[in-house]
Amino acid sequence: MGVALVLRSEVPSVVAGSHVTGFMPFQEYPLLPKEMAGMLMPLNNPRGLPWSTFVGVLGGTGQTAWMAWEEFAKAKKGQTAFVTTAGGAVGSIVVQIAKLAGMKVIASTGSDDKVAYVKELGADVVFNYKTIDTKAVLEKEGPIDVFWDNVGGTTLDLALDNANTGARFIECGMISGYNSPDLKPAAPKNIMKVIEKCISMHGFILPFLFAKEGLLGKFWSVMPGLVEEGKVKGREQVWRGLEKWGEAMHAVLTGANTGKAVVVVADE
Amino acid sequence: MGVALVLRSEVPSVVAGSHVTGFMPFQEYPLLPKEMAGMLMPLNNPRGLPWSTFVGVLGGTGQTAWMAWEEFAKAKKGQTAFVTTAGGAVGSIVVQIAKLAGMKVIASTGSDDKVAYVKELGADVVFNYKTIDTKAVLEKEGPIDVFWDNVGGTTLDLALDNANTGARFIECGMISGYNSPDLKPAAPKNIMKVIEKCISMHGFILPFLFAKEGLLGKFWSVMPGLVEEGKVKGREQVWRGLEKWGEAMHAVLTGANTGKAVVVVADE
Repeated sequence: MGVALVLRSEVPSVVAGSHVTGFMPFQEYPLLPKEMAGMLMPLNNPRGLPWSTFVGVLGGTGQTAWMAWEEFAKAKKGQTAFVTTAGGAVGSIVVQIAKLAGMKVIASTGSDDKVAYVKELGADVVFNYKTIDTKAVLEKEGPIDVFWDNVGGTTLDLALDNANTGARFIECGMISGYNSPDLKPAAPKNIMKVIEKCISMHGFILPFLFAKEGLLGKFWSVMPGLVEEGKVKGREQVWRGLEKWGEAMHAVLTGANTGKAVVVVADE
Repeated sequence: MGVALVLRSEVPSVVAGSHVTGFMPFQEYPLLPKEMAGMLMPLNNPRGLPWSTFVGVLGGTGQTAWMAWEEFAKAKKGQTAFVTTAGGAVGSIVVQIAKLAGMKVIASTGSDDKVAYVKELGADVVFNYKTIDTKAVLEKEGPIDVFWDNVGGTTLDLALDNANTGARFIECGMISGYNSPDLKPAAPKNIMKVIEKCISMHGFILPFLFAKEGLLGKFWSVMPGLVEEGKVKGREQVWRGLEKWGEAMHAVLTGANTGKAVVVVADE
């Protein structure tokens, strides 16, 4: 995903002088065929936020976090949320939104550096799931009312075991399965808890949320303000220059990046 | 659960001359301690429906079916529902409610007698899951938008595989697990479909629905009329006389009953 300033356009829906976002090539002056115009979204930026924001906390990751939370979390002050991959681009935004809703936040992430970062974001309990037992944390700090699941498998089973009555599970991803031979996460043995604990489990992909009437509009009416006020922050790692593309991509694919990877091809 | 006429009361909330429902002993003149008064629900029957209705289609089974459907199904005309245990006390009501909502109904049940019964109730596709392959039926008649799950296990996996985008799964029971050594249904291998297909899965037990504001009131404002008009029917098997209790219980426990088992201890 990129953000670009439109220099010239032969299509009425794309206005010269405006900014747009969408899939576009890594080029300083990309030339897009007319057929792709429908996939470019115009951007309004009355608050003058950095344009990189629109590929991060106000882009797909921010939209995923905020819209799924808004649609499914039914957040209540004083309740407890458990956020997995809390150091990631999506999870870190979920942590901040959950805290803004007045919830206690338990957060898991995969490195001590990320633990420190997620604590800074305000999570109440943060742990490195590679060195600390998730089961023990949930039994001590739970039960949980909202589960932001990016992991699936045994973590999902533990969440089912440690859920409160009426808990909401937001199923954003199941990365525990992505490296298994059949690409499937471990089947949840405790699925019966869904009934016993009256759990609602919501799976989604981003286009499904875009189709929910009014939800994206609500995102644009709320999130830029939160970003401007510093209440929701994204962590970016910026590479400057077209030639840095390979370096940035390598960091993303090896997990070495420390925030949303942004390549600034050119300033305005 | 029983229905009784109050002959005498020393508690203001239970009025002599009125009818009540609740747990009560199999006796012609049960004498209940004051402490149990709070668990008796007064019944209004302005339509003069048979009192047995209030332990069946207007009792716990009807409440389970109607309230969970109302809360979770988000029924849309022309969409497809798959109802398991459709010949049972709850499932048979779900079938009728789904048809009233204008849906195509696929129904599974465990005997040819029940298949005939569920067809009478208006289901579009009815099959005996013991003799016909559920997978083949769903692949031919699906995809499904609402899944009424009373079974869990492999049937849940098949439903996940044959769900439409945005499907709603209503998790009422997982009887496939009740006879397994660890009392658990088979873990769903296809749980990842919850994300891919943007499925919402809702588990519940009846007290959880009672706690939803206004839902029980809505049940009472809608269902008695549907029952009176014959739009929702319950099948009852009636035993007359206190001494038939053992016979009725034996039928329920062996599955030999052909409808909601009702023992009429005494008429008014």
